[in-house]
Amino acid sequence: MLDNQESGKKENVRVVSLAEARETGMPREILIALHETDGVGRVTIATIFLYGAMKGPGSLRHSGGYLAGDWRDMGLSARQALAAEKSVRPAAAERRESRYAAGRMDVVTYLDDEYPPLLREISDPPWVLYYRGRLELLKRPAIAIVGTRLATGYGRKVAEEIAEGCAGRMTVVSGLAKGIDAAAHRGAVSAACGTIAVLAGGVDRCYPPENFALYREIGARGLLLAESPPDTILHPGLFPLRNRIIAGLALGVVVVEAARRSGALITADLAIGYNRDVFVVPGQVTSPRSLGALEYFRKGAHPALDAGDIFQYYEYRLPELPGPKARNGAVSRARDAEEELGEDERLIYRLILERPSSVDELAASSGMTFGHLHSILLNLLMTRRIEQQPGSVYHVL
Amino acid sequence: MLDNQESGKKENVRVVSLAEARETGMPREILIALHETDGVGRVTIATIFLYGAMKGPGSLRHSGGYLAGDWRDMGLSARQALAAEKSVRPAAAERRESRYAAGRMDVVTYLDDEYPPLLREISDPPWVLYYRGRLELLKRPAIAIVGTRLATGYGRKVAEEIAEGCAGRMTVVSGLAKGIDAAAHRGAVSAACGTIAVLAGGVDRCYPPENFALYREIGARGLLLAESPPDTILHPGLFPLRNRIIAGLALGVVVVEAARRSGALITADLAIGYNRDVFVVPGQVTSPRSLGALEYFRKGAHPALDAGDIFQYYEYRLPELPGPKARNGAVSRARDAEEELGEDERLIYRLILERPSSVDELAASSGMTFGHLHSILLNLLMTRRIEQQPGSVYHVL
Repeated sequence: MLDNQESGKKENVRVVSLAEARETGMPREILIALHETDGVGRVTIATIFLYGAMKGPGSLRHSGGYLAGDWRDMGLSARQALAAEKSVRPAAAERRESRYAAGRMDVVTYLDDEYPPLLREISDPPWVLYYRGRLELLKRPAIAIVGTRLATGYGRKVAEEIAEGCAGRMTVVSGLAKGIDAAAHRGAVSAACGTIAVLAGGVDRCYPPENFALYREIGARGLLLAESPPDTILHPGLFPLRNRIIAGLALGVVVVEAARRSGALITADLAIGYNRDVFVVPGQVTSPRSLGALEYFRKGAHPALDAGDIFQYYEYRLPELPGPKARNGAVSRARDAEEELGEDERLIYRLILERPSSVDELAASSGMTFGHLHSILLNLLMTRRIEQQPGSVYHVL
Repeated sequence: MLDNQESGKKENVRVVSLAEARETGMPREILIALHETDGVGRVTIATIFLYGAMKGPGSLRHSGGYLAGDWRDMGLSARQALAAEKSVRPAAAERRESRYAAGRMDVVTYLDDEYPPLLREISDPPWVLYYRGRLELLKRPAIAIVGTRLATGYGRKVAEEIAEGCAGRMTVVSGLAKGIDAAAHRGAVSAACGTIAVLAGGVDRCYPPENFALYREIGARGLLLAESPPDTILHPGLFPLRNRIIAGLALGVVVVEAARRSGALITADLAIGYNRDVFVVPGQVTSPRSLGALEYFRKGAHPALDAGDIFQYYEYRLPELPGPKARNGAVSRARDAEEELGEDERLIYRLILERPSSVDELAASSGMTFGHLHSILLNLLMTRRIEQQPGSVYHVL
């Protein structure tokens, strides 16, 4: 599968429609066998389908037992044809089945009703997907949240909060990488619409190993998804291929934090290529770790302060109504906490929210007298909006 | 002038065009006298012009010596008419002239060719403006840069840099307030297109006093501008009126940092009302001091990472070509400094750019060995990209 030497050819191959592919009569088991045949990649499979579509209905239905000669007729090289003949044999199919069972995974193909509909629309859809977890998540409106592996604390916090907000009405897709990806999965995994982690390697291998706990939780409560068959050896070329699935599954891609030339931007570029939306969560223009993301504003990306800003683009495609928790954490929490405060209390609360501070610092930046400040702090402490920590520093609760 | 009781009436009064106003024949000295008459405000003057426009060409040219009766005919109350009669007398005019000379200021009226053309287009243009400095700045394409008085270090830095970039091709307008306004003026005051400070009080009175050095520099190298006559007593109602002039002078308003309900947002709202652009410099969505600004994205504000993002909206109105310095500081400086670095050097440079760091912190966040890190730091030190400061903390130069 996924022969790299084919990657340059994809422009020349038309994608067959679902109807055309089904009309050829190719059984899904044969498609899976081809996908796992060494030296047979996405483009070869596409040409087989096109051959079948040209030949007419049923032309790929068990034609002559799928011997090497048949595969040669369909345009495969001698070597590919021999490999394919071996791979489609019942014994090989049985070995695959027990491998899937051992890896607690299952398979969905381009030919199946369960295949994610938006992913079918991209120019180079995967023919086969391996998964563990809740397959039904593939039918929900999805949003991808991606970003740098070298995330700042700000980036991780915002990714987690926006993912939590989004997952109230959309499934959150990401790549289980360190940094932003992991934060997004973490925010979404317990929420109503859950999260999908698309892996570059096989579904039963956690990469990177640091995210094992998250990987296990997503396997149990969300969905692990991969184009690579089990036992695929990871190599760098698999990551951009994985990224196209992330972009392909989602209505839009949210970039939280990414330096220039960050790998996460490949996903954003693919989303633009697939005519999907790109959203950027604002960050500081002086932060090199934000600049790559912020520059997508110049390509027409939409600013997203919270999940609500994303929902409004898909309002007509989202089944549920926005609950009170649907808007994103940071913003609405700050808003709620401030709602019932007096003007001076609000000022002090905001100063502490921005940076944990001592009484002296608060007096200096607010210009209030100590007496007045003291009574405000007392009130905020008693209403459990702030707390005092060692060194008499006040934090927001 | 500026009688507050009139402010509610402005919707009912049509603005006279320049041609209509000139056709009435009212001399500019009379307009100035009316503007400085107690109890006669913007709306009253507008109704006088409309009266004149209705009566026909020349109808306000010295009609009967401008006695109280004439003013009554034009719709003024008995009290207003008496005050106007006094104010237009030659002795009063002389007193005004010497007051202007003493305050080193001059006057430009709505009737003059020097009046800023974009300001004529707003629904409630000032009839008279007082100024000190380079009047020709009023003819240049202008951009307003505004924000909170309680700015963070990030906000001030970005305001100064974006103002410096903008002022290469546009005049930067702001309100001389503390925080963002002051930073914007500071960035622009030495640049090619300079800066205009619009004051709420008179031109010869610096408010706030903290910005006196800047006020003096703008008076010498830029332009101080005010609708309030000299000796006006400052009151809160003058600031929104001042903000309309900031918005009215500029093709667009850049909001750098502003909490919800910040006064700077009045300027942004006015700009929207005047059909001007609003730009927002991204900041962190978790910062309450950024949220008010960021929320303008929801009203269609454009993200601006640097001056180049603003120039592209006005390319056809800007006379000069963008020089190498026209793009904004932070972004391009970081880009230039990074251009010739190797990959590891760049990583370390960015980490230090983001936050001054010790060797231990850099080792932890980069994952490099101390030996390798040491040689990189040496190289960055020798090429003068970073410097070591007390406590062995590295800073970007």
